Amino acid sequence: MQLKNDLILRAAKGETTERTPVWLMRQAGRILPEYRAVREKVKGFREMVVNPEIATEVTIQPVDILGVDAAIIFSDILVVPEVMGMPYEMIEAKGPVLPNPISAKEDLKRLKVEGAHQDLHYVYEAIKITKRELNGRVPLIGFAGAPWTIMAYMVEGSGSKTFYKARKMLYSEPAISHELLSNITSVTIAYLKEQIKAGADMVQLFDSWAGILAPDQYKEFSLKYISEICNAITEVPVTVFAKGAFFARKEMGNLKCNTIGLDWNMGIKESRELIGAQKTLQGNLDPCVLYTSYDEIKKHTKKMLDEFGPHKHIANLGHGVYPDTDKDKVKCFVDSVKEFSSKKVSI
Amino acid sequence: MQLKNDLILRAAKGETTERTPVWLMRQAGRILPEYRAVREKVKGFREMVVNPEIATEVTIQPVDILGVDAAIIFSDILVVPEVMGMPYEMIEAKGPVLPNPISAKEDLKRLKVEGAHQDLHYVYEAIKITKRELNGRVPLIGFAGAPWTIMAYMVEGSGSKTFYKARKMLYSEPAISHELLSNITSVTIAYLKEQIKAGADMVQLFDSWAGILAPDQYKEFSLKYISEICNAITEVPVTVFAKGAFFARKEMGNLKCNTIGLDWNMGIKESRELIGAQKTLQGNLDPCVLYTSYDEIKKHTKKMLDEFGPHKHIANLGHGVYPDTDKDKVKCFVDSVKEFSSKKVSI
Repeated sequence: MQLKNDLILRAAKGETTERTPVWLMRQAGRILPEYRAVREKVKGFREMVVNPEIATEVTIQPVDILGVDAAIIFSDILVVPEVMGMPYEMIEAKGPVLPNPISAKEDLKRLKVEGAHQDLHYVYEAIKITKRELNGRVPLIGFAGAPWTIMAYMVEGSGSKTFYKARKMLYSEPAISHELLSNITSVTIAYLKEQIKAGADMVQLFDSWAGILAPDQYKEFSLKYISEICNAITEVPVTVFAKGAFFARKEMGNLKCNTIGLDWNMGIKESRELIGAQKTLQGNLDPCVLYTSYDEIKKHTKKMLDEFGPHKHIANLGHGVYPDTDKDKVKCFVDSVKEFSSKKVSI
Repeated sequence: MQLKNDLILRAAKGETTERTPVWLMRQAGRILPEYRAVREKVKGFREMVVNPEIATEVTIQPVDILGVDAAIIFSDILVVPEVMGMPYEMIEAKGPVLPNPISAKEDLKRLKVEGAHQDLHYVYEAIKITKRELNGRVPLIGFAGAPWTIMAYMVEGSGSKTFYKARKMLYSEPAISHELLSNITSVTIAYLKEQIKAGADMVQLFDSWAGILAPDQYKEFSLKYISEICNAITEVPVTVFAKGAFFARKEMGNLKCNTIGLDWNMGIKESRELIGAQKTLQGNLDPCVLYTSYDEIKKHTKKMLDEFGPHKHIANLGHGVYPDTDKDKVKCFVDSVKEFSSKKVSI
């Protein structure tokens, strides 16, 4: 299937594009009334993830409604711990909970590693159906959590402000930590490769809890495994988004990936200097800007585009879009990127 | 009253000291069984804050028990919104809640500014009694929240992962935001000056929610007011601790303060380069290290001291000590700083 719009793939590969491609993290979600309508009809969040038809429907919604330049498969990073033997529950207003977290070496024995990725057949199925339904309109992004972030949930057993149990394990039990991270890495590589086989046109790693580690610790326990994954995925462009890892930007410039995501705390020019000229950068408008007026959204979007420049940039927010953002404000962001970046090239 | 140990004051002023001074953020707190015993006898957290005898008792506990080089007055940053007309409640496992948060211009009218600091007489009284009881053993640190952090609670009405209501106000209502921040700044300056009159030997500003703002926004809405406070406080050394404000380190080097606190994400050498040679630096061991073995604590403490060097450094954690940390591990950190930094000077 020939893609009719491959802007994001060309931008990721560093090619010159006629305008800057744009999508939003969490675009398939609560911001859309159409998503909320689907969500109300099912029992829980997990039902949407494991049902390929529903996952397809909500994956495609933002392409139709917002006009973004990529779809991202509707799923959750916690499907990996699940197939490794640690199911999660999504508790309203609390977030994910994983009963029986990892706390000692013997806990590793109950984890499935070899072949675990095969149990994620519903993700591959959703990717196949989505690709068919998209019919080449835009590329489809696959994704997984970075090993450190997955470990953080597996050891903490839930979300947390500090993830102190997981961080304690890094300091106190480095050997157990490395074994666990290595196992997660194996499953993640197999999982991403299978997503690509099913049709994902590019993949993104989310290191959501990068920002709570000390710089040296991040290099030892997170970047090492991200690097292994980047080295293993040679089929499609890879994006690494490590929220809060400002201290690792220089090292991230050496990863064998195409794109580095920036959060809204990271200055654009400084990040470009640290990461180097080779990588495509993704981001990084503060999601809070979409709470403001149309004029302010246009102004801040233009400022962001000017700072990134016309090439090697994929426009996005600096984090997932907040669930209560007005859909029309999101559309304003998408349209502004298209309008301002086209002008820039034609001038 | 002549101080018997003025290491921290001399270090803050950039003078050479015979060893590195050490204290911990949240040293007066749950880590001490003696604190927990006091806490059990009172009705709630606030009773400890408003009762000068109790505040004195828990302020002095870590000086006796841990051997730290400074006491910090037991209080809370939310006493400032309280005297401005927004009382807080500490809800177990949830944190502070401020009913009726600020959401529009008319809400500013109900805030008391002029003379509000006078209602904090119990803090000044606690400082006076503490100074008497300390009897010159170590200096006493006063403190306040930085205006942005106080505003964040006043607008959000509670703690939050994103403080999106407060950040939205910065984008949508910059004029209201500046008026609110300016009012908080006035009260804070008067409050700190009164703490100093009562006997505080140095003061620290806590910008706990610095790290959620975009770099430009931080300069406009936070650093501006921190700078006003630093300019106004000329009586004693001032420390600014802005958690997560890695992107503002260069600008913080220009503040009229003595000491900049670093969190554990901030690389020491990089921070020194950005902040410059003039300032004393405070921090920045990861509080999680105190969950590890005695040997690991010693190793990481030594590494930190080596990186900071023997002068213009006040040893501390990179954030408040976690409440369930073993007291003996905290003592190990304090003793390690004393031992290793003394050796370093004598070599």
